[in-house]
Amino acid sequence: MTAADTQPLRLGIAGLGTVGAGVVKIIQRHADLLAARSGRPIAITAVTARDKLKNRDVDLSSYHWAADPLALAQSDEIDVFVELMGGHEGAAREATEAALRAGKDVITANKALLAHHGHELARLAEDNGRVIRFEAAVAGGIPVIKTMTESLAGNAIRRVMGVMNGTCNYILTRMESAGLPYETVFEEARQLGYLEADPTLDVGGIDAGHKLAILSAIAFGTEMNFDAVEIEGIERVSIDDINRAADMGYKIKLLGVAQMTARGLEQRMSPCLVPADSPLGQLQGGTNMVVVEGDAVGQIVLRGAGAGEGPTASAVMSDVVEIARGVRLPTFGQPASGLARAQAARTAVPAAYYIRLHLADKPGALAKVASVLGDAGISIDRMRQYGHGDGTAPVLIVTHKTTPEAVDHAIAELPKTGVIVGEPVELRIEEV
Amino acid sequence: MTAADTQPLRLGIAGLGTVGAGVVKIIQRHADLLAARSGRPIAITAVTARDKLKNRDVDLSSYHWAADPLALAQSDEIDVFVELMGGHEGAAREATEAALRAGKDVITANKALLAHHGHELARLAEDNGRVIRFEAAVAGGIPVIKTMTESLAGNAIRRVMGVMNGTCNYILTRMESAGLPYETVFEEARQLGYLEADPTLDVGGIDAGHKLAILSAIAFGTEMNFDAVEIEGIERVSIDDINRAADMGYKIKLLGVAQMTARGLEQRMSPCLVPADSPLGQLQGGTNMVVVEGDAVGQIVLRGAGAGEGPTASAVMSDVVEIARGVRLPTFGQPASGLARAQAARTAVPAAYYIRLHLADKPGALAKVASVLGDAGISIDRMRQYGHGDGTAPVLIVTHKTTPEAVDHAIAELPKTGVIVGEPVELRIEEV
Ligand SMILES: NC(=O)c1ccc[n+]([C@@H]2O[C@H](COP(=O)([O-])OP(=O)(O)OC[C@H]3O[C@@H](n4cnc5c(N)ncnc54)[C@H](OP(=O)(O)O)[C@@H]3O)[C@@H](O)[C@H]2O)c1
Ligand SMILES: NC(=O)c1ccc[n+]([C@@H]2O[C@H](COP(=O)([O-])OP(=O)(O)OC[C@H]3O[C@@H](n4cnc5c(N)ncnc54)[C@H](OP(=O)(O)O)[C@@H]3O)[C@@H](O)[C@H]2O)c1
Repeated sequence: MTAADTQPLRLGIAGLGTVGAGVVKIIQRHADLLAARSGRPIAITAVTARDKLKNRDVDLSSYHWAADPLALAQSDEIDVFVELMGGHEGAAREATEAALRAGKDVITANKALLAHHGHELARLAEDNGRVIRFEAAVAGGIPVIKTMTESLAGNAIRRVMGVMNGTCNYILTRMESAGLPYETVFEEARQLGYLEADPTLDVGGIDAGHKLAILSAIAFGTEMNFDAVEIEGIERVSIDDINRAADMGYKIKLLGVAQMTARGLEQRMSPCLVPADSPLGQLQGGTNMVVVEGDAVGQIVLRGAGAGEGPTASAVMSDVVEIARGVRLPTFGQPASGLARAQAARTAVPAAYYIRLHLADKPGALAKVASVLGDAGISIDRMRQYGHGDGTAPVLIVTHKTTPEAVDHAIAELPKTGVIVGEPVELRIEEV
Repeated sequence: MTAADTQPLRLGIAGLGTVGAGVVKIIQRHADLLAARSGRPIAITAVTARDKLKNRDVDLSSYHWAADPLALAQSDEIDVFVELMGGHEGAAREATEAALRAGKDVITANKALLAHHGHELARLAEDNGRVIRFEAAVAGGIPVIKTMTESLAGNAIRRVMGVMNGTCNYILTRMESAGLPYETVFEEARQLGYLEADPTLDVGGIDAGHKLAILSAIAFGTEMNFDAVEIEGIERVSIDDINRAADMGYKIKLLGVAQMTARGLEQRMSPCLVPADSPLGQLQGGTNMVVVEGDAVGQIVLRGAGAGEGPTASAVMSDVVEIARGVRLPTFGQPASGLARAQAARTAVPAAYYIRLHLADKPGALAKVASVLGDAGISIDRMRQYGHGDGTAPVLIVTHKTTPEAVDHAIAELPKTGVIVGEPVELRIEEV
């Protein structure tokens, strides 16, 4: 160890909201533990946020208050710029870039920033001999970035999957347990403060899509490509589908799946069915889960709190201690300058599908549906027809493995038969 | 990066059995991937095992064959000594010590060695400015050492739990699914090659106890103290108890629990009941699971293959890439020279208990049992008495939370009532 390695590591923290205040609390509470584990003291030297006068439930009096994030990023008083503001443009982006240029390492919890600008930031970091760490950006307290970047370094990764937006999983599991429709539970979640200011980030699958893009880049050693993630939110998941899927032994989850195929990199974040008794199926409420499959290790499952002050701050501290210990990792597990952009492929890996539709009360209706599926090359594994309640009969179909194209084709053809009422619903059944 | 950091990292591998051959295969298969991730090539320069002529299903022709582990450990051709022989004395210990003295870093999968001599080895490594890494030593492919040492560095750890011997979990889950007695499944496991040469290491809980001692040292920042682990194997778990526990909503697992209490460090590896629907309860076959609870992160659950060629070699490769990247961590997360031996405490944390006994067909028998429990200060949560089949009536009791001392006392008193037949069985119900 050189002398510099036993000097305090000086942090500048920009953003003192849920995560920022959580980080300050851990550093204050565990100063001795952190010093013992890091081999040197961890010191906060300067902080900033929008409102200097806001009461933040932590004592900030011994830290310098920087005028703004940019000033903090370039301050001589800090070694590491800790970006906990959020947003993929504006202050977060500018200050992060400025910090790297000024020779500071960066720690961030900002998945939006990384999903949109991760590759350029990684290159900028490399050009300046700096590191960017972001354990908190994906799945909160779960050590998924470290696991993928380090623990699985001896594996070719086959597939990464995850339930990574706690709010969506809360909404889906609450709909099922309380038997409530989407709109009601969405309103509940809003009132409980579970939703982002712009709720589409959560329920539209965008936040989870950001996280998937980050995991893909590490898993497959490819340039970040968030725009190529096929994203579908949970807005069209109905309580009906949740109940019917449960009848058939499945749960509906907003599931991210990334895998490299011969056609290119598939990245998809969408509501999927998973077996009710699988680890993913059993996930309740705001808990997150990431499943990684490697050629040597097989399947690894990681589970924990995906958000909240303590878990997210815990992940930030993992990065802090890592840098304090002198560990310097390439941003996405390999030098960014060597990464190529993977061919992006739409999902083509075959899977079983769940199809729900309503049959009109007409003779031969079911036969017509079956023949559309047959013509599309889809064979039926299981089918249930319920009674004609209001004149239409709900029908549930679980198909054998088939391609998304075949399903799209069948879904487009079905209304033309004239024997179904309303739009058919189709959901992929992911093998987990 | 200095020039030395882009030179190949030269490994000497001692032990070419299941794990050693697995490591060689990964290095041969993934040379490019490993170089990209490590920033430098990974090279095997020399190897050794007992029998040079044995066919090992890998091409070793380009590596120097060292005469013995000690010669390999001291060879000028290697930077890292990879110990994959096993055993806590003899060649593994001597060569590991020699490697550290000769200025080599060490990677090992040997939990026995670490549990018995980890503290001295960590001090020896520090004195020589070397590192010892051992991801493969606990829970195979699951990245538990890295998670505890690095990812949770911002947490005071409250409790660590784990099912960490796949053979025991295989035996227990197979007993349940096939309805077979312990002895039969034990024989099956032996024939399948699942048992160590000395099976007490597995079924006696010793192997899992080694792993728990390693996790405790990291979790609580204390000197390794394997001798203080309270160990009980699965030999006395009967198919009866497995079935009865299932009736009450529980599974029986060989569960390790370490927690720091006001009285000292409790470390226990023993058959316990866990709720059937908890992540631990749902664990089937050889899969391992580790649950860590930290003050900031809450509960983290890690699950994966606990043994086998691929998963274990994957963990070894995590250490290889870590060292290749220039990462240098203190053996148990803090400098060993600063660690204190924790006061060892026998388990005193209260828990609910499962008690099974057989009542003689005598009037007032159950009342006598209840009064023994009451006198011991134990209150009953749930009780089931089954019919008098062969003259005795099985009785199952789930107690409210009580202390192990109270249970021990009651178990000692029960036979004195003269109303029970045979020995009562008692198992702890761990809150998970
Ligand atoms: N909350 C979680 O559970 C969680 C989990 C994982 C990742 N994250 C990520 O962590 C980051 C922070 O999240 P959060 O929940 O802590 O957000 P938050 O509670 O809204 O806090 C944001 C903080 O940033 C400050 N800030 C925002 N814009 C600023 C600007 N232009 N200049 C200076 N300060 C500015 C705010 O200042 P004022 O307080 O003065 O308004 C506030 O202190 C985000 O990237 C988020 O995606 C959060
Ligand atoms: N197998 C697993 O799934 C697993 C999982 C986690 C940890 N581990 C640990 O990994 C280590 C290796 O396990 P393994 O399953 O690979 O064992 P293994 O298949 O029995 O292989 C042991 C190897 O070590 C060599 N060896 C033993 N004693 C030696 C000596 N005195 N001098 C030179 N070579 C010697 C043997 O040589 P020969 O081949 O010539 O006999 C053999 O190649 C152990 O510490 C074990 O606890 C294993």
